[in-house]
Amino acid sequence: MLSAPDSEHYPMLYLDDLQVGAKYLSKTHQLDVDQIISFASQFDPQPFHLDDEAARSTLFGGLAASGWHTAAITMQLIVTGPARYAGGMIGVGVELSWPTPTRPGDILQAESEVEAVTPSRSKPDRGIATIRTITRNQHGDVLQDMRSKLMVPRR
Amino acid sequence: MLSAPDSEHYPMLYLDDLQVGAKYLSKTHQLDVDQIISFASQFDPQPFHLDDEAARSTLFGGLAASGWHTAAITMQLIVTGPARYAGGMIGVGVELSWPTPTRPGDILQAESEVEAVTPSRSKPDRGIATIRTITRNQHGDVLQDMRSKLMVPRR
Repeated sequence: MLSAPDSEHYPMLYLDDLQVGAKYLSKTHQLDVDQIISFASQFDPQPFHLDDEAARSTLFGGLAASGWHTAAITMQLIVTGPARYAGGMIGVGVELSWPTPTRPGDILQAESEVEAVTPSRSKPDRGIATIRTITRNQHGDVLQDMRSKLMVPRR
Repeated sequence: MLSAPDSEHYPMLYLDDLQVGAKYLSKTHQLDVDQIISFASQFDPQPFHLDDEAARSTLFGGLAASGWHTAAITMQLIVTGPARYAGGMIGVGVELSWPTPTRPGDILQAESEVEAVTPSRSKPDRGIATIRTITRNQHGDVLQDMRSKLMVPRR
């Protein structure tokens, strides 16, 4: 498992600071049954997210977190991680998939890579950064694969 | 505003039942400041999702819900809505954008439309349904535009 960053003191990133290929690794988050059921009860009340016994007869074969829970935890990991975008992390659009179910006991960690940096033609004070964030568990399984377009200000 | 469905008794939908162009309208969910701050504190702790005063000087110009909160509420509206997919709502991949910020006091409603139905070539017992879900507030503003690929079993 990759080591987590050890500093809370990260510089503000402007569009001009972003280098294609740069990678940022988050802290980790350990998930348990209670968190999975609590989130699912409120936002995704389906049997495979609520009850391990009921989940056994489904495609998941056991309790799994809602994909939206994995996405929300990933956001928390990104926002508290080393890439601190000036003006905040403001997503314009997102694509995501969940190749492997997120399970109780999983320890989640998000790694983000800058894929593209595109200054706005109409608004010289900002641009779009395309960031790909992979969320893995402690075994290296890919739980979520996300590509985000963020609005980032220029210096 | 469109009227919400009035029955909790919905038939299970198999891939064979899905008609391109069919639309499904959810119930509504009213959002308030406490819900916005509670979700953001846990999953998206940025000033514009936590504090109205701090949010005024940001791009949002005032408190706004995390996009992941809008996504999670939308999931709740879909799962409790009239389209009940056999085997549950299992997303393979998703694209989404948030054209308008979600605000305190917004009443959210999700409308889903079947865009495509594609039986699997390798697995005759299932297929992929492409569903576009638009989440609007009470003024008709589009808060979220999502296209989901769902795995749906065949009869």
